[in-house]
Amino acid sequence: MKHLLGLRELSKEDIIKILNLAKDMKTILKSETKKTPHLQGYSVVTLFYENSTRTRTSFELAAKFMSANTTSISVQTSSVQKGESLLDTVKTLEALKTDVLIVRHAVSGVPHFIAKNCSFSVINAGDGMNEHPTQALLDMFTIRERLGTIERLKIAIIGDIFHSRVARSNIWGLSKFDNQITVFGPQTLIPPYIENFAYVASSLEEAVSGKDVVIDLRIQLERQKRGFITSKQEYYKFYGLNEDIMRYISGSTLIMHPGPVNRGVEISSEVLQLPNSTIDEQVTNGIAVRMAVLYLCTRKEGIYR
Amino acid sequence: MKHLLGLRELSKEDIIKILNLAKDMKTILKSETKKTPHLQGYSVVTLFYENSTRTRTSFELAAKFMSANTTSISVQTSSVQKGESLLDTVKTLEALKTDVLIVRHAVSGVPHFIAKNCSFSVINAGDGMNEHPTQALLDMFTIRERLGTIERLKIAIIGDIFHSRVARSNIWGLSKFDNQITVFGPQTLIPPYIENFAYVASSLEEAVSGKDVVIDLRIQLERQKRGFITSKQEYYKFYGLNEDIMRYISGSTLIMHPGPVNRGVEISSEVLQLPNSTIDEQVTNGIAVRMAVLYLCTRKEGIYR
Amino acid sequence: MKHLLGLRELSKEDIIKILNLAKDMKTILKSETKKTPHLQGYSVVTLFYENSTRTRTSFELAAKFMSANTTSISVQTSSVQKGESLLDTVKTLEALKTDVLIVRHAVSGVPHFIAKNCSFSVINAGDGMNEHPTQALLDMFTIRERLGTIERLKIAIIGDIFHSRVARSNIWGLSKFDNQITVFGPQTLIPPYIENFAYVASSLEEAVSGKDVVIDLRIQLERQKRGFITSKQEYYKFYGLNEDIMRYISGSTLIMHPGPVNRGVEISSEVLQLPNSTIDEQVTNGIAVRMAVLYLCTRKEGIYR
Repeated sequence: MKHLLGLRELSKEDIIKILNLAKDMKTILKSETKKTPHLQGYSVVTLFYENSTRTRTSFELAAKFMSANTTSISVQTSSVQKGESLLDTVKTLEALKTDVLIVRHAVSGVPHFIAKNCSFSVINAGDGMNEHPTQALLDMFTIRERLGTIERLKIAIIGDIFHSRVARSNIWGLSKFDNQITVFGPQTLIPPYIENFAYVASSLEEAVSGKDVVIDLRIQLERQKRGFITSKQEYYKFYGLNEDIMRYISGSTLIMHPGPVNRGVEISSEVLQLPNSTIDEQVTNGIAVRMAVLYLCTRKEGIYR
Repeated sequence: MKHLLGLRELSKEDIIKILNLAKDMKTILKSETKKTPHLQGYSVVTLFYENSTRTRTSFELAAKFMSANTTSISVQTSSVQKGESLLDTVKTLEALKTDVLIVRHAVSGVPHFIAKNCSFSVINAGDGMNEHPTQALLDMFTIRERLGTIERLKIAIIGDIFHSRVARSNIWGLSKFDNQITVFGPQTLIPPYIENFAYVASSLEEAVSGKDVVIDLRIQLERQKRGFITSKQEYYKFYGLNEDIMRYISGSTLIMHPGPVNRGVEISSEVLQLPNSTIDEQVTNGIAVRMAVLYLCTRKEGIYR
Repeated sequence: MKHLLGLRELSKEDIIKILNLAKDMKTILKSETKKTPHLQGYSVVTLFYENSTRTRTSFELAAKFMSANTTSISVQTSSVQKGESLLDTVKTLEALKTDVLIVRHAVSGVPHFIAKNCSFSVINAGDGMNEHPTQALLDMFTIRERLGTIERLKIAIIGDIFHSRVARSNIWGLSKFDNQITVFGPQTLIPPYIENFAYVASSLEEAVSGKDVVIDLRIQLERQKRGFITSKQEYYKFYGLNEDIMRYISGSTLIMHPGPVNRGVEISSEVLQLPNSTIDEQVTNGIAVRMAVLYLCTRKEGIYR
């Protein structure tokens, strides 16, 4: 595995390899020193065309805990870049002796384009509405750690499915393990043809009932302007995870969220504090998963087992 | 000592412990390698809701010289944050395996709130008009190094006492050592009830005469808009440390300033160049003091002596 | 050699020493670990009053590969700073135990002013229209690596000579080695008295014919507003390195560019892809040259050979 571009193209075996290694990495994270020499002398560059303190910091810490040199390149404009100038950036990064590039871009497919045109490893930290593979991997890691398995589960994904790369990566990844996936959200935010990959519930009650896992998506409040959502209050009433809906959810069902949450919009403060809410665990697991991905992308196949 | 939130709650013994350790740290700073392994594997995060190249860089260098991993989280808006979302940030930092958080915030008490709600160490790098403890500690370190003692001195603090967390921290710290503190500044910038803690002089001449130390505060020029100060020229005339007023100050009196200075507003270029002006020393001492604080906050009580 | 302020004042021997050492550094860059302990415990600060991801990242990586602590100080405004406040910044950096300052400033002579007023090493990363010495050194390194020599060559520099610190540094450096330098560009962008240092060609064809090296400068598109350039299209037609002009350039002539390129303005995509185009190599060589400069500025004369 040289790149991590998405879960769509990853095999079941590769996913298991990452999750197993992440378990070891989590042990290191809990140790006194939190330091491994695995990426000593490696140059890891984060190139974010969209802002993200959370994901960027998580990747940076993962790389630093493994003794890599990290460099952040900030891109002032988040506007779509022409293929040509993006290629020039890539060539410069190559010449700057980059070993791993972690890239986020508003346009789907940018990490794939870079991977085709460079010699270093590329990790997709989110590309447009396409994929956010490390987020889905950390979700899968959290599920497996909590429930002991990542197979044959009943999993609901709630919210803005249409714009969500988190939903897409989770659907690609979880589908490989024979899970039964249900989606629910505002009618306008359910993508066409999703029926081929997931069951579309007709009410929030139906969506969450009898599930092992409920993944709640973050609402991009700026979507409201474009008419996808009428108001925060209405969203919370019809799609929010609040006390009313908790009556349909068992006490052992995991409540997950990629963060940061809009309290009182997607989810209530009370629900977030339940023992089966995993949001903070997910953040910690994110570092462990990213350490595993960094390791596997920089080592030759077969060395680690 | 797990947190450093303010000098108000710190004991005399704790302050002496920090100043003693800072002396050792300064020796390391002057050595060839400037590197200690004390924070190897520790994750130190700076979270500044207000801009400050100076203090932030000083903390970052202190942490790096002690081999810590450092990460800066930039917060675009300096607007007051709701307790709820601040709590979410804290929980995320905890999940990101933060060991020490260095925080600056426009609202008094934010570091205390964080410390109550997290498992990591919190160091206050300035909270509203409340405290800036490492600045006062470096001032005290500088005084002790120059004058051989931090007890029973006559110390004047000049300028905008009302808005100054530097003044407050110094008053809390210096009061514990039986020092005689005098304050002076524009009438509107002297806080009520300050008489309980310091003598309010009636003229600049009176304030500085016969003092061992004069601490000159930085004027926030934006205060002028709100009418606290009439003009720079007038401020300089009545409250500035210039050649005229130096006739009342002995050659051995320390002239201190937290920096950066507004030359020709609080203080003249000539006064800054006097041998008893300590502004640059204070910056160096700031790193040493912050190294000591980082050390003590991450070690269990009693190990270092 | 304590500072690197410009190639004007550097001796031929110093330049050769840097280029030789950079060759060793390039070997390290190609090694598995990319890490040397040479700057262990050194504090390297980048202070850029003008934006530059490229040069700043190159310097940062060079310092990190040599195990230095690096800190970036961002300056919001690129406006000309008063000597007085610049001096305060320098004094603070000194007090912060800076060992090497890498500075870029819109005003010519700022690095020289700082060097005169501080105890640390100063490396000029570009000062106004004056010099950009590490860029010229990496150009010279690239020429020597490709052609086996840096002496008695025929070298053309094409573009906005007037505003270019890259051109100036190259002219100072290359002149010391008995090279024959030709310049060409829009009439308004040829500086007065340049005839004393270089031959001014009367056409692009004449400028590039029979040359060993063609250095193409980046056009600052903002100059267009001020009337120096009429339009991108016209610039490309008269001064751009395109297929038409390539008929006058031999297949072994090096085509160099400091980057980033404006494709279709200074140079065509096709020309950039020729095997004798060195733009990406120049970036890699830039790290090696900067490592060499960092080494030499922090070691006493004569230790390295």
